[in-house]
Amino acid sequence: MSDPLKRVAIVGSGNWGSTIAKIVGNNIEKFNTFENEVRMYVYEEVVDGRKLTEIINQEHENVKYLPGHKFSPNVVAYPDVVEAVKDADILLFILPHQFVERTCLAIKSHVKSTAFAVSFSKGFYVGKDKHVDLLSSVISRSLEIPCYVLMGANIATEVAAGTFCEATVGSRNYEHGQLVKGLIQTDEFRIVIKPDTEVIEVLGALKNIVAVAAGFSDGLGYGDNTKAAVIRLGLKEMVKFCEEFFPGHHPQIFLESCGVADLVTTCYGGRNRKVAAAFVKTGKDIRTLEEEMLNGQKLQGPDAAAEVQEWLKEKGQANKFPLFAAVHDICERRMDPKALIDALRYHPEFW
Amino acid sequence: MSDPLKRVAIVGSGNWGSTIAKIVGNNIEKFNTFENEVRMYVYEEVVDGRKLTEIINQEHENVKYLPGHKFSPNVVAYPDVVEAVKDADILLFILPHQFVERTCLAIKSHVKSTAFAVSFSKGFYVGKDKHVDLLSSVISRSLEIPCYVLMGANIATEVAAGTFCEATVGSRNYEHGQLVKGLIQTDEFRIVIKPDTEVIEVLGALKNIVAVAAGFSDGLGYGDNTKAAVIRLGLKEMVKFCEEFFPGHHPQIFLESCGVADLVTTCYGGRNRKVAAAFVKTGKDIRTLEEEMLNGQKLQGPDAAAEVQEWLKEKGQANKFPLFAAVHDICERRMDPKALIDALRYHPEFW
Repeated sequence: MSDPLKRVAIVGSGNWGSTIAKIVGNNIEKFNTFENEVRMYVYEEVVDGRKLTEIINQEHENVKYLPGHKFSPNVVAYPDVVEAVKDADILLFILPHQFVERTCLAIKSHVKSTAFAVSFSKGFYVGKDKHVDLLSSVISRSLEIPCYVLMGANIATEVAAGTFCEATVGSRNYEHGQLVKGLIQTDEFRIVIKPDTEVIEVLGALKNIVAVAAGFSDGLGYGDNTKAAVIRLGLKEMVKFCEEFFPGHHPQIFLESCGVADLVTTCYGGRNRKVAAAFVKTGKDIRTLEEEMLNGQKLQGPDAAAEVQEWLKEKGQANKFPLFAAVHDICERRMDPKALIDALRYHPEFW
Repeated sequence: MSDPLKRVAIVGSGNWGSTIAKIVGNNIEKFNTFENEVRMYVYEEVVDGRKLTEIINQEHENVKYLPGHKFSPNVVAYPDVVEAVKDADILLFILPHQFVERTCLAIKSHVKSTAFAVSFSKGFYVGKDKHVDLLSSVISRSLEIPCYVLMGANIATEVAAGTFCEATVGSRNYEHGQLVKGLIQTDEFRIVIKPDTEVIEVLGALKNIVAVAAGFSDGLGYGDNTKAAVIRLGLKEMVKFCEEFFPGHHPQIFLESCGVADLVTTCYGGRNRKVAAAFVKTGKDIRTLEEEMLNGQKLQGPDAAAEVQEWLKEKGQANKFPLFAAVHDICERRMDPKALIDALRYHPEFW
């Protein structure tokens, strides 16, 4: 007797969620490991007078968040998150990080005890008591199921367009890791599975802080050498953070897509870099620039910098990460952007 | 009785050599560890009717290779390399790599037996028998003195302009390493000393191959995700090459300036990237593009790719480095640039 087919649910339907839904829907049609229907939780909204879930289910396209790309018909949109995840064996969480906890609370008593989750969101979770945590821990703890992660240098529109790229899946469970790989990997989107789940997730949050520093360097008019030094010293602080708080990982985990690749892309092309450069050049506040440059969408780097300072203060290690501290102080206007270099000149790396 | 003062010679006076001469001249005036005079070997040429050595010694400026920057007066140009290195305790080699061996032969019997050298050149040495070697090994073997290296994300004009940056010095000898740091480090040019000399040097040569691949990716019109994957898979081949042929190094040596920082700068800003992108877009040969885009100066990436294939064939490992092999095959027109991605899709990293 063969194993029963696994049922997959996708929690989230933004740009990245829809991209993953497109890939997963296509992949599932090729294999007989999974139930054909992929349920996708879609926060209901009205687009041109029609419900978004209806548009998706009739036209197989998320016209709002991933226009121009067709889902395979087995991707079915559900406006009710409980309905979407009911009976699912694999839950893919692709939500903005501020919605993760409340969504978990809503589905808590409806998730199969044998299910597992995968978190695709980059960023820390901050509780009401200001305690900082990992999103995968929040998901795992509230649903009482394992939660793995997928991170990497993955700009969603490029992944959806099918240009070649790769990602890192963090999973210590071989069978679950292979299932995730089976769902996500294509000829153009390659997956490497590594056991260092927490570190893989932490790197995805910390890189945005370094990207802000890289943006300051650009905004100050410094060249390639300085930017390379900023990125490298930032990477070393990311490594040190992981060594201090998540020891026991493989020393080369930083060379995976979730590490150096995602960092570099973010420091050269990402919006944290762009807004940080504008912060220096225009003298405007981060919040103002978010409204002007990102349609009010929140920038992750400055928040992550604040969260990491909270984390480090809690552990009594605030003074060991001068680049992280400088980014936070500059964003909060307690330090002149030019002082970034003073923070780096006598960095512990040079002792 | 205090130690006798150390005498420093700089062998080479191009853009990078003159930049280092500027820094070393200034630093020496601040410390009493070194003889005040720094001799710089200058290949004699005539500039506007005057000898270059005379211009440098009268105006304290290398008007041809580093115009606009003044040397301190203790930097003295010598047209005779034997005169320049005689009595020197520290020899800084900053020559194009094709001139290193013949220069060593010329000075061989005039170098102090207690001296040591530092090589600043990036690239492999290829002997007449096509055997590939490290430049530091060539210097060390022919002069019978130790040879260390300095590598990093250091575009010479930016270093000369004094914007913040850093470099890695490879030295297993503590005292010698500290002397080099004393000569080179400033508030704006920070030095980290690491013992993995060979690996530090090898990374400086291999990164140019990866930059060619990054240029192909740009030329093919791929976006940030693909380029990040190309850079990361290239970095992993650099790591594998070092593990295979120079084992025993620290696993985090790749996170130093000589590793990830130099690689990233080269893959985003360097001329290997630029010419490789033009190679794809124009269909012209590398040699033609060198003449058109670099005034006939040789590109290091395609040569390094050929040298590494020679090295790998010698060791029977040619098939283990698909990105290195693809870059060579594409440069030699044995492979279409588009096939780069096929070489990466089934890369051992994804097995």
